[in-house]
Amino acid sequence: MADSEFDVISKYFNTDFTRPDVSQGIGDDCAILAVPEGQRLVASVDTLIAGVHFPVDTSPEDIAYKAIAVNLSDLAAMGAEPAWFTLAISLPAIEHDWLEAFSKSFHQTLEGYGVQLVGGDTTRGELSITIQAMGFVDVDLCMQRGNAQAGDRIYVSGCLGDASLGLQLIQDETRSSSESDYFVERLNRPVPRVELGRSLSQYCSCAIDISDGLFADLGHILERSRRGAEIKLENIPVSSQMKDYLDHENKVSAIHEYMTGDDYELLFTVSEANEDAVKAIGEDLAMPLSCIGVITEGEGITFINNGKVVYMKSS
Amino acid sequence: MADSEFDVISKYFNTDFTRPDVSQGIGDDCAILAVPEGQRLVASVDTLIAGVHFPVDTSPEDIAYKAIAVNLSDLAAMGAEPAWFTLAISLPAIEHDWLEAFSKSFHQTLEGYGVQLVGGDTTRGELSITIQAMGFVDVDLCMQRGNAQAGDRIYVSGCLGDASLGLQLIQDETRSSSESDYFVERLNRPVPRVELGRSLSQYCSCAIDISDGLFADLGHILERSRRGAEIKLENIPVSSQMKDYLDHENKVSAIHEYMTGDDYELLFTVSEANEDAVKAIGEDLAMPLSCIGVITEGEGITFINNGKVVYMKSS
Repeated sequence: MADSEFDVISKYFNTDFTRPDVSQGIGDDCAILAVPEGQRLVASVDTLIAGVHFPVDTSPEDIAYKAIAVNLSDLAAMGAEPAWFTLAISLPAIEHDWLEAFSKSFHQTLEGYGVQLVGGDTTRGELSITIQAMGFVDVDLCMQRGNAQAGDRIYVSGCLGDASLGLQLIQDETRSSSESDYFVERLNRPVPRVELGRSLSQYCSCAIDISDGLFADLGHILERSRRGAEIKLENIPVSSQMKDYLDHENKVSAIHEYMTGDDYELLFTVSEANEDAVKAIGEDLAMPLSCIGVITEGEGITFINNGKVVYMKSS
Repeated sequence: MADSEFDVISKYFNTDFTRPDVSQGIGDDCAILAVPEGQRLVASVDTLIAGVHFPVDTSPEDIAYKAIAVNLSDLAAMGAEPAWFTLAISLPAIEHDWLEAFSKSFHQTLEGYGVQLVGGDTTRGELSITIQAMGFVDVDLCMQRGNAQAGDRIYVSGCLGDASLGLQLIQDETRSSSESDYFVERLNRPVPRVELGRSLSQYCSCAIDISDGLFADLGHILERSRRGAEIKLENIPVSSQMKDYLDHENKVSAIHEYMTGDDYELLFTVSEANEDAVKAIGEDLAMPLSCIGVITEGEGITFINNGKVVYMKSS
């Protein structure tokens, strides 16, 4: 039951881009890799399946980009420096045009982040892409979900909800493409906050990337940290495009319906003492960072709108 | 398009088995892992798909075992010490009995080798298992495909062909189970040669595991090493069970038809000077090691049967 993956991997996924810490990349039973002294290896695995994690008619370029971005986003949430990927790809058939487009976008995106593909496996099956992302982090500078402290401010990067709206617009055939272009781009081309994560790790010890949705991912932090949170709903950052859309559709009050994931922004907590340093990082990177609430001693999430408690979600 | 993988991974794949070099296992965006100083990280990825890499009616216990074994086999071929796995599993539905059986066998097998599962992702799709295996190797003791030298002896561990015959017997409905039991067991439960690989790495610098088939995998070594080989066909080790089967079926001359893969034995080369040390390793581990030929300056494989050249295969 041997597989003929060898040719696909060597034909499409070999690359001239090499890192000095890779003694052996694609082409042997294993890759051989050097983790810098004093650093920890971080590793994460994520699978994207057609029709589940992206619409089936997504372009090969966008699929490759997104598969990389969501995995880099996991490294960003730890404050890690990305280094190496492995790729396991399952394909219904060997379609050269598709593979050509996919692998070109894959290499371009990966090399843009200085990451080398060091191993791969191709199998025949429904379209599915599994990436293991590896990187390094300073032993003392790792951000983890369980480190939130009562009194910490809760921040998010960028704007939330665009990707979720993009998915809804794709599925709504009455929409014109000009109306949905911006949101679909935000769905297909999330920007992993790698540099932000690395900078934040100097001042923050708790972060997560928003893949499951703002409140679900905040819940993961609260559960691991055994803390609660107060969230100011009016502080949740949304894009001007989304504001316009919600105004136009008379849906301003429905903003929370779009907090369902795929944002790939960072959600992190910071002590009052480090808040100014974090704001300076946001300014340096020209990256909006919004304080949306505070970690509490209690349990669950208390939602506050313009000073009034509107809802409480138990943990 | 968030996934509900969280519960499946935490319910079935969390484990009390922890290694001291794992600061963070399952439960955060990434695992945090410490590679020992002076060692290199080795990493390999392999996907097994139902109906391609194992018959669809293979038991969950056997699938879990084999998924681990084939990945450990890649580490063994480098001479590496296994340490950590990540698991990306795709399932058509959440069947608790199946998951219970699969995860129990998975943990038992993994812990038997001292390996910790440090990350996972569950998605909905056709049954598919992708494992990334990670381990360590001494910087100077790594076995690679490209290191074969002219004059090196070519060795294989164990017996070859049983798994391939097992697959044929499963597909042949006229066969009784008593006739095929041994061979099917060899197909479903290959033993990764981890300890052998680590011992050999002291004396050998070139190895591969036999997953694609003896001659295909030898071809990978020759291609990377830019060498040729002479193989003595009568020296290829087969089990007494296979000999009996071939005798009974009048198929003794067809032995090469069973060199099609799934053996997961090690194929390695050793200089004349180190041959005695390698033989001593085989005796220590009670593991048959057979010299099946020699690496040559030339190209391709020359097959010799009882002193006569019977076939030449170009590279």
